[in-house]
Amino acid sequence: MTHGVVETPVFMAVGTQATVKGLTPEMLEEIGTQVVLGNTYHLALRPGDDLIAEMGGLHRFMHWNRPILTDSGGYQIFSLAANLKITDQSAVFRSHIDGSLFELSPERAVRIQENLGSDIAMCLDECPSLADPKPNQLRAAVERTIRWAERCRNAHTRPDQALFAIVQGGLDLDLRAFCAEALTRLDFPGYALGGFSVGETNQQTLTALEPTTALLPADKPRYLMGVGRPIDILQAVARGVDMFDCVLPTRNGRNAMAFTAEGTLRLKNACHKRDSRPLESGCACPTCRHYSRAYLHHLFLAEEMLGPTLVSLHNVSYYNRLMTEIRDAVVGGRFADYLAVNLARWGGSS
Amino acid sequence: MTHGVVETPVFMAVGTQATVKGLTPEMLEEIGTQVVLGNTYHLALRPGDDLIAEMGGLHRFMHWNRPILTDSGGYQIFSLAANLKITDQSAVFRSHIDGSLFELSPERAVRIQENLGSDIAMCLDECPSLADPKPNQLRAAVERTIRWAERCRNAHTRPDQALFAIVQGGLDLDLRAFCAEALTRLDFPGYALGGFSVGETNQQTLTALEPTTALLPADKPRYLMGVGRPIDILQAVARGVDMFDCVLPTRNGRNAMAFTAEGTLRLKNACHKRDSRPLESGCACPTCRHYSRAYLHHLFLAEEMLGPTLVSLHNVSYYNRLMTEIRDAVVGGRFADYLAVNLARWGGSS
Repeated sequence: MTHGVVETPVFMAVGTQATVKGLTPEMLEEIGTQVVLGNTYHLALRPGDDLIAEMGGLHRFMHWNRPILTDSGGYQIFSLAANLKITDQSAVFRSHIDGSLFELSPERAVRIQENLGSDIAMCLDECPSLADPKPNQLRAAVERTIRWAERCRNAHTRPDQALFAIVQGGLDLDLRAFCAEALTRLDFPGYALGGFSVGETNQQTLTALEPTTALLPADKPRYLMGVGRPIDILQAVARGVDMFDCVLPTRNGRNAMAFTAEGTLRLKNACHKRDSRPLESGCACPTCRHYSRAYLHHLFLAEEMLGPTLVSLHNVSYYNRLMTEIRDAVVGGRFADYLAVNLARWGGSS
Repeated sequence: MTHGVVETPVFMAVGTQATVKGLTPEMLEEIGTQVVLGNTYHLALRPGDDLIAEMGGLHRFMHWNRPILTDSGGYQIFSLAANLKITDQSAVFRSHIDGSLFELSPERAVRIQENLGSDIAMCLDECPSLADPKPNQLRAAVERTIRWAERCRNAHTRPDQALFAIVQGGLDLDLRAFCAEALTRLDFPGYALGGFSVGETNQQTLTALEPTTALLPADKPRYLMGVGRPIDILQAVARGVDMFDCVLPTRNGRNAMAFTAEGTLRLKNACHKRDSRPLESGCACPTCRHYSRAYLHHLFLAEEMLGPTLVSLHNVSYYNRLMTEIRDAVVGGRFADYLAVNLARWGGSS
């Protein structure tokens, strides 16, 4: 890619509104972040992709010189927008910011992402709710997702940007297979798995993951969108996934929750008040090198901005370290052991 | 000082609760911050000076290895605490955080600051309101401030910490002189001017400043507490002041107001929406090197934490640069010219 090589499996830090909340690009680089994700829906509404293009593109606008992936806006339309009307032509909805009318077609989603200048763009997809899926609705969404993927591919012009397609189909393995095969025939440089929410209480979802990744070309990256907890990522890597993004490390960081190999810490708890230890012994992140749990506890009680920043920094670093450990285990032929040890520690099933 | 030499005149960044709001120590070092100020009142109430001592002192607690000055808590007692009862023995008040009862005597103020381990500590003083000063009240406060300064000096034991006294007296030049002379006889390594609020609409205050600094030893630093705007600092340097602190660069930074040599910018204003220029051309701070006004405008509209951080960073850097320019002008024998040019530009009187 124009902005550098990415080692997989990789965790991508979420920078929805052209900033990873509370962290500077320098901090992200220091902890080894390889890719930042930007959200097409948010950025198209504010400040606008035309403005970002005018400012030299998203990399320059937000001062991030490593690779950027932008999503297509599909997921946000279904979760954030109001008054959604969806036809084969496009999705028309009202902005959650100011109520203004916005139309997103496959062609527009591609144009926006070409304006943003991300290294990886995503095809516009239809994301029906998984909570109460109706079979016909799910099939219609898959068929539309395939038609839209083809239109995105036809509209796409930037040679310095890779366009990935998104496999939908919910928990219906036949639909997932149908979608994966149709998209593979269109020959994209990478594929995402949309509409999954992996969780330890949802063994069904986990079961649906492996057959789907198996249908996708082995030499192309597979990206599981919006997932998840460390244990979810580990289990998904075991099922062939290469790329991840999730708001958990930064969202939990802002809420005083730290990830560690020994489990999570809630820094507002009184037990941390006089604890001179770092969040995680042996962690090389700036937060663990320089600050005690007692100091972080104090920052959260005093409602100081530095608390969310320092814990987010550790959490993203923790996710990056997890991915490095996974890569090393894979390269060293030790991944099965690594998986077993960590699942036993975290209480998950393989 | 144990933590390094300070070049004066100096601006000290305010780190009330053991953090300069929104900025990391690394950011502060990068922009040349020499001293950080911690607030005794806030830190004694939360997390407690005993806890900070247990954690190795304030420098280690907040990861700031350059000099720290702590105030005495006097000013905050009078402005923040509830149910204040003041006697010669001590000030008794209720915490603004949890309503608990707290007693601050000169001896306790010194012990707290010795626990914090600051490089410069301040004597406890009485700060009567300047808004409606009663002559007897002002004189009584000055006399108590002198008695308390002597008790602080007697209680002070740390050889690695300098204890400064505070000159009170409001706008009464005779009282100021009386206070300055009495404190000078007690021979402190530095003196502060308390109870001043310099402002261009308050020529009276400015007039009272010079006679007071003239009464203090020329070879000891003079510190004007809590002041102020760039023009206030410049005018105070012209009247013999060496040290300053003020919340303006960080508070205004959080409120989207940037200081520049050409005046202030309000970044939420629509005029910045498509402005690709940095906050200030030629400014070497990280914010100006890497980000456009358009990006900062976007961050504030999107209510992203990085906005307050980046503008605070520029503002503290701006204050630091102002002090460097002043020092260079003094060393080069050009201060009178520098003063005249900037007062003309900022519309103040010398």
